[in-house]
Amino acid sequence: MTEAIRAAVFEELAAVGYARMSIEGIARRAGVGKTAVYRRWRSKLHLVLDIVSALAVQGLPAPDTGRLETDLRLLYEVTSRALRHPVASQIIPDLQAEAARNPEIAEAMQKALRDGQESVASSILAAAVGRGEIRADLDRDLALDLISGPLYWRAVVIRSPKLPKGYLGALSRATAEAIKAL
Amino acid sequence: MTEAIRAAVFEELAAVGYARMSIEGIARRAGVGKTAVYRRWRSKLHLVLDIVSALAVQGLPAPDTGRLETDLRLLYEVTSRALRHPVASQIIPDLQAEAARNPEIAEAMQKALRDGQESVASSILAAAVGRGEIRADLDRDLALDLISGPLYWRAVVIRSPKLPKGYLGALSRATAEAIKAL
Repeated sequence: MTEAIRAAVFEELAAVGYARMSIEGIARRAGVGKTAVYRRWRSKLHLVLDIVSALAVQGLPAPDTGRLETDLRLLYEVTSRALRHPVASQIIPDLQAEAARNPEIAEAMQKALRDGQESVASSILAAAVGRGEIRADLDRDLALDLISGPLYWRAVVIRSPKLPKGYLGALSRATAEAIKAL
Repeated sequence: MTEAIRAAVFEELAAVGYARMSIEGIARRAGVGKTAVYRRWRSKLHLVLDIVSALAVQGLPAPDTGRLETDLRLLYEVTSRALRHPVASQIIPDLQAEAARNPEIAEAMQKALRDGQESVASSILAAAVGRGEIRADLDRDLALDLISGPLYWRAVVIRSPKLPKGYLGALSRATAEAIKAL
């Protein structure tokens, strides 16, 4: 039943957004009673934060190909699919907007980002340091910005409908060079 | 009076967000009548789109230092100030969220981004091609993603309160290397 509720939250978030979403609406969509939802999560905020956290870590493996560029390439393959999912591309901007007014959501979003993509990116960086491909004392946060920013910009901000052929390969090469220059 | 209305729109957007904002609220805040607002803009949507477009181009010079890295550095100085303005950091995510549900806003945001930062970034790229610093046939859209993504990610998505010393210098160096690798 938890899965039915999670699925209903995604649909409800995508349809009406966080501000207008209600526990009633979620329960109706999931075909359960309101109490079934409240037994698992004590508020709409906690429900969404739980879902966000799960979304961030879900399905992101830590690649280990032995080279920074190819590790980045695998990370981008997974991330671009996740970001371009229609549900994610509506929900992420919505929660970002809420985060600007709600410090609890802002903190949960940042934590989800750190626990999800950033922890994978951190493993990739640590492995590259271990191989001597990049400097051990580089600005780790800046490296994470270089890894995460461009694809997010393209998929979520510019909302480009489709990545051209060769895009992820060129992005991986360019980002690897950028990090080596730090 | 147009300036008073513009200022009121910024304050109202930051305070209540696009969805809850009304022409009445804007007029009240600006100390004018509703008709004064409607004489200039025919709807809330058109008013906000106009403001967004103005925000994007405002105060962004096209740097021309003779080097890609230092041109990027100047662009980042201006952009980081603009993005970190409290009003912008609330309004941009808000409009991004609306863009996910409203194609008209999505299109205006994209146009504003293109007309603003991206046109400056395009001039920087064209100058670098002219000097032979970067390839003439590189993927221009990918280069723009590399230029715009990391700082946006850091300032608007991660919402990092302060950039550490040396950040923009290192970002400019790394991004120049990334684009040279395309």
